[in-house]
Amino acid sequence: MNNLAGKLKLNGFSMPALLALVFLAAPGSVHTADFDILGFDQAGSLEQRAVEVQLDASINPKDLDEWLRKLSATPHHAGSAADKDNAEFIADLLKSWGFEVAIAEYEVLLPTPKIRELELLAPGSFTASLTEETLPEDPSTARRETLLPPYNAFSVDGEVEGELVFVNYGRPEDYEVLERNGIDVTGKIAIAKYGESWRGIKPKLAAEKGAIGTIIYSDPADDGYGAGDVYPKGPFKNDSGVQRGSVMDSPTYPGDVLTPGVGATTAARRLDREDAPTITKIPVLPISYRDALPLLAAMGGAVVPAEWRGDLPITYHFGPGPARVRLKVEFNWDMITIYNVIARLTGSTYPDEWVIRGNHYDGWNHGAADPLSGQVAMLAEAKAVAGLAARGHPPMRTIIYAAWDAEEPGLIGSTEWVEEHATELQQHTVAYLNTDGYSRGLVQVGGSHTLELFFNQILQEVYDPRIDVPLKERKHAYELVYAKDDKAKAEAKDRKELRIEPLGSGSDFTPFLQHLGIASANIAFGGEGEDGSYHTLYDTYEHFTTWQDPGLLYGVTLAKVAGRATLRLANAPRLPFEFNGFVDNIKLYVTELEELAEKQRTEAAETNQMIADGIYAAALDPNKTLGPPSKKEPVPFFNFAPLNNAVEHLETAAKAFSFAADEHATSSAEINQLLYSSEHLLTRKDGLDGRPWFKHFIYAPGFYTGYGVKTIPGVREAIEQKQYAKVDAQIELAAKVLESMAARIDQLAGLIAAPADQQTPVAGKDS
Amino acid sequence: MNNLAGKLKLNGFSMPALLALVFLAAPGSVHTADFDILGFDQAGSLEQRAVEVQLDASINPKDLDEWLRKLSATPHHAGSAADKDNAEFIADLLKSWGFEVAIAEYEVLLPTPKIRELELLAPGSFTASLTEETLPEDPSTARRETLLPPYNAFSVDGEVEGELVFVNYGRPEDYEVLERNGIDVTGKIAIAKYGESWRGIKPKLAAEKGAIGTIIYSDPADDGYGAGDVYPKGPFKNDSGVQRGSVMDSPTYPGDVLTPGVGATTAARRLDREDAPTITKIPVLPISYRDALPLLAAMGGAVVPAEWRGDLPITYHFGPGPARVRLKVEFNWDMITIYNVIARLTGSTYPDEWVIRGNHYDGWNHGAADPLSGQVAMLAEAKAVAGLAARGHPPMRTIIYAAWDAEEPGLIGSTEWVEEHATELQQHTVAYLNTDGYSRGLVQVGGSHTLELFFNQILQEVYDPRIDVPLKERKHAYELVYAKDDKAKAEAKDRKELRIEPLGSGSDFTPFLQHLGIASANIAFGGEGEDGSYHTLYDTYEHFTTWQDPGLLYGVTLAKVAGRATLRLANAPRLPFEFNGFVDNIKLYVTELEELAEKQRTEAAETNQMIADGIYAAALDPNKTLGPPSKKEPVPFFNFAPLNNAVEHLETAAKAFSFAADEHATSSAEINQLLYSSEHLLTRKDGLDGRPWFKHFIYAPGFYTGYGVKTIPGVREAIEQKQYAKVDAQIELAAKVLESMAARIDQLAGLIAAPADQQTPVAGKDS
Repeated sequence: MNNLAGKLKLNGFSMPALLALVFLAAPGSVHTADFDILGFDQAGSLEQRAVEVQLDASINPKDLDEWLRKLSATPHHAGSAADKDNAEFIADLLKSWGFEVAIAEYEVLLPTPKIRELELLAPGSFTASLTEETLPEDPSTARRETLLPPYNAFSVDGEVEGELVFVNYGRPEDYEVLERNGIDVTGKIAIAKYGESWRGIKPKLAAEKGAIGTIIYSDPADDGYGAGDVYPKGPFKNDSGVQRGSVMDSPTYPGDVLTPGVGATTAARRLDREDAPTITKIPVLPISYRDALPLLAAMGGAVVPAEWRGDLPITYHFGPGPARVRLKVEFNWDMITIYNVIARLTGSTYPDEWVIRGNHYDGWNHGAADPLSGQVAMLAEAKAVAGLAARGHPPMRTIIYAAWDAEEPGLIGSTEWVEEHATELQQHTVAYLNTDGYSRGLVQVGGSHTLELFFNQILQEVYDPRIDVPLKERKHAYELVYAKDDKAKAEAKDRKELRIEPLGSGSDFTPFLQHLGIASANIAFGGEGEDGSYHTLYDTYEHFTTWQDPGLLYGVTLAKVAGRATLRLANAPRLPFEFNGFVDNIKLYVTELEELAEKQRTEAAETNQMIADGIYAAALDPNKTLGPPSKKEPVPFFNFAPLNNAVEHLETAAKAFSFAADEHATSSAEINQLLYSSEHLLTRKDGLDGRPWFKHFIYAPGFYTGYGVKTIPGVREAIEQKQYAKVDAQIELAAKVLESMAARIDQLAGLIAAPADQQTPVAGKDS
Repeated sequence: MNNLAGKLKLNGFSMPALLALVFLAAPGSVHTADFDILGFDQAGSLEQRAVEVQLDASINPKDLDEWLRKLSATPHHAGSAADKDNAEFIADLLKSWGFEVAIAEYEVLLPTPKIRELELLAPGSFTASLTEETLPEDPSTARRETLLPPYNAFSVDGEVEGELVFVNYGRPEDYEVLERNGIDVTGKIAIAKYGESWRGIKPKLAAEKGAIGTIIYSDPADDGYGAGDVYPKGPFKNDSGVQRGSVMDSPTYPGDVLTPGVGATTAARRLDREDAPTITKIPVLPISYRDALPLLAAMGGAVVPAEWRGDLPITYHFGPGPARVRLKVEFNWDMITIYNVIARLTGSTYPDEWVIRGNHYDGWNHGAADPLSGQVAMLAEAKAVAGLAARGHPPMRTIIYAAWDAEEPGLIGSTEWVEEHATELQQHTVAYLNTDGYSRGLVQVGGSHTLELFFNQILQEVYDPRIDVPLKERKHAYELVYAKDDKAKAEAKDRKELRIEPLGSGSDFTPFLQHLGIASANIAFGGEGEDGSYHTLYDTYEHFTTWQDPGLLYGVTLAKVAGRATLRLANAPRLPFEFNGFVDNIKLYVTELEELAEKQRTEAAETNQMIADGIYAAALDPNKTLGPPSKKEPVPFFNFAPLNNAVEHLETAAKAFSFAADEHATSSAEINQLLYSSEHLLTRKDGLDGRPWFKHFIYAPGFYTGYGVKTIPGVREAIEQKQYAKVDAQIELAAKVLESMAARIDQLAGLIAAPADQQTPVAGKDS
């Protein structure tokens, strides 16, 4: 790590300084890759940076503040009048800046709560309030006429009565602990903490294990008083706050539950609701820790392990019972109309190549942080981009800004639009850039690793708004200071490029990336704006601007980062995809898979040996319920050779590509089409085993983690889920998509290195 | 690890089975070390085991139960009439079994509380109750006429007023966190959690840092409802329970604060109280979590790090203030008489070689667990040993049973006796075996590593009372199942002998081991009997027999283990010291020291580099109080060669000794004297730097950990405390004591291997 002091500060360039640089740059030189923007030659880089200086100057924090205040004035869930008003407000803004704006409407199933009842039947009695308190300190919380009360969208209707079992976070490993303690949830109601896994996994797994209902609560240890002061004194969850959210089985497919794979137009064929596989199997209800306390306090059974304990002032027990509860939920299963705002700025040179940039606008409540913080940053960016066009700097490619509706209930707006326009989107889309709510802190970029170097350049040029260092340097420094182990420390020290994260799910990039195979990225900030307001009544303008991003400094920075990404993708003569970073990440995943298999193999063997040797019988406390683990299925050896061969091929191809790309600025419509469609090679038409909607073989949300990503998911989940017989075939499939990517990179290297006269020159030093 | 099923079960031998073994053992064979008891030949081993069968048979759980009930009927702190009654009861029992019993009296300073006041002055007001509740479910708690209210003995008198600062556990590393957050305790009152460091360290360090008072409370996360159900529903600390305890600076010297180094006889010269260095510098008071809650809730300042948080239903803040408290404590500084019960059974063959066995009897309250559980086990053992003598199996060496008084306020009874009789104890004492309160669970042996193999043999022969495996095998299995890392797992798998722990302080072994250099051991059980009753009103017969050792199964087992240890030491023709285990542990400590220095060196260099590179400035959240660490003093390289050479010498000597000892059963008075006095070679007359009372250069309580041991303390503490200039000289000193030990082992190996006619044969195969 270099000294951060005295670094060239690019985002602070004045125009005269930029002009000076023009003279410094020797004309005709092609070996200036460190300064050149990926995909641009030297002159183009200077021109592009000049455009970006104007971009930055056009982003006005007062705009963000005004729009945020306006759009978050009242609760505005998908299907509400307030939500439609917001769509129209956004559409009008975009129109006023010169975009061609269309509203794409879909008819989708969206349940809202009708009956929500939860009571403790014994011992004692207690009726849960299921209500969030209005706070005098935050006037927004009083504007609650259109407020949906706390619920989990796509819970099935139902009334159940039974004993409670505490299942910690309700993850697969939690059920292993229950099993070792002799506890079965069959016929019981599971009470789970929010967190650690995506909420939809909790009822899914509880139902698979035989539970008849699920209650989810936010423990104060996670985002309440245990984490910090509670709202309004601090940013964390007060005792009435409840996290709403969808529990549809989105790792099977997201979007409208009735129209998987097709756009939910009026004419679309629909499943019967009873047949929709992504609605939960058992009723679910989210509650506050105030409502959870009497239920948990009434529980008995063995005391839970230390790692399971929360911060309520009680002893946590597994159950089952004696606490017995009745849970009833019933919903209005209405068909509603949703509205995506689609704004187009046609490219001056390549109108049929589209850069799509999206952020949803529907919120569970006021939604100031989620999603409006990201939405207003995107609007500021769109205004600046339109302004540049109006001032004679139109994008060379078409830019489409999309404000998605109904993301909260299950990525519905984006998914339906993507499903409807699948073919043309695959043909034309260069990349999809997503944002969503953000918070204060470190930059977070996830996405296709062919864009890793591209983003690293941007993050080196945009500065943190509170600390005078580039975003990239700050993140590198953060990773060094907070490295969890020697491996992480070595990576933070030695890896020049910031690793961008692979994408799981949880926002609107999913249909683009994982259904269509369009290169995508998600950009955010976070980690320092503490928050317990997520999906509660308290996600207000007041909360966000007090506790998360006062002055909207990071909103402005987000617009600078995403704006640069959008414009560079729109203007680059040769699209800025790069493959060394991609291969380095793939190598990491393959190594992880081999290590995972080896670890699972060793653990199974050791555990079985220890069981056979009577070690557990001798070691475990006979007065406790914790028993030995069950005997493990031995883990066979797998043939990782196809993956390793593919990596080898990829590595050679990526090096050849870099060599060619460094030497030649060659570009052409064919090269660009081959570049942006390369991501599609990572998909397979049949999709993943058991969930055909997900077609990407490198990135997928985990079947049992939800938002959490599983890289090379076919292989990884087969190993994790102990479906050992499937592993070798899944390795073959993953290797095949990587081999076709390698072939594509080879082809591109050849095209770029070929003599200029065999190319269709578009721009570049060779022409 | 071998299969535990079907192992030879030695402690279950019937007499006929033992007789059968006599015939199986081939006469004249000397290579039966695996079966022979260390220090005994084959015939002697059989005879000794037959004695031990009788020992086991004589230990009656009904005795333990009766004595425990009797001795714990009322609170009986040192200086109370109840305490004296207990001493007389114990003395009478021992007399009745045939011991010569004497009461050793000392006059010592022992403060008891006169005034204890704690109130929150602002914001709001609150007066701490400082009182533990009587529980109808536990009749003992109503017997509280002689109860001392919660206090910390050897707090100085004082009244202070100031803002609170939360200092976590009040350890050195906690003050580093405070410093990085810009918080200074100067002029403030520190509020610390009980746990992690010995309680006396908390006010000591707080005073060094400038605090004017210390409040110590038990957080429910540690031994209250966060850990499990509270008394009387469960074993943990209810909201009124307060841990009492001494806060004298015992790492400087334990025992009577006025008579360091000499017995506190009537005639002894005494310090003025004002000059006693081990009384705290600032007033201290322990409180319950019920009393702590309003104080902590009133605090402000930054939110503490996650690792600092407890389980009270509040957000924990550093302070300082705004919570302002007044603390007043005043004590009766009385001289009291204390009474050690000393019971002697004179040895039949070597009356001048003494095996001393001790356990204190004074308690802070009813003291059922601490110390009476251990006391009644010792009494059962003493009764059995006396019975064996009466039935014709007198011990060959003299056995002394000691019931110590005034251990709780600071190891006073044992220390004064040891100081008074230092010279004769050093001359005659073969070993000191200590017990104290115990709980259910795994065997815990700490002590001189020359006794490691000796104890391993015993632990292989005594079985766990709930699980049908030897104590050693159970502990090995436990260490394997709960291994924290690969290193611990490898040790649990590969090390044949159970490692016995080095001794720090916290019970009556300290004066024997660390002041006189007498080989010592401490034997206990624990880890499975959960407990928040320690030093509270709730340490009662009811609590102990319900939650810790129902049926006193582990009390009986403790008597079997300690009884075997006592009898084998008393009867072994050649004393059972062994040196391979000792050397293996020393090697580990030397490696630890080298690693510690290296780690400290790397960390200092890395931290300084990161500061210089601006990494912290870039990484840290500018909205938080946490700043970069301060620049570290670079760590020089040290000359560890003297220690490594000493280890090398020790290793060779220990192997030669083992070889000789395996081949020859030679023994003599000279050999035995050289064996048992070898521990003394590990001490130096001048003692440790800055605390001359502590003379042992291998084991000492940590100056800033209290009970926690520091091995090779001169070197280790110099490195830890960054007194780098001292390190090389301390290495020399430690190497010197180890070199003299190595020379002694060489000498012993020579004596044992020498022809028998040059020896004074006592017993053994060579004679």
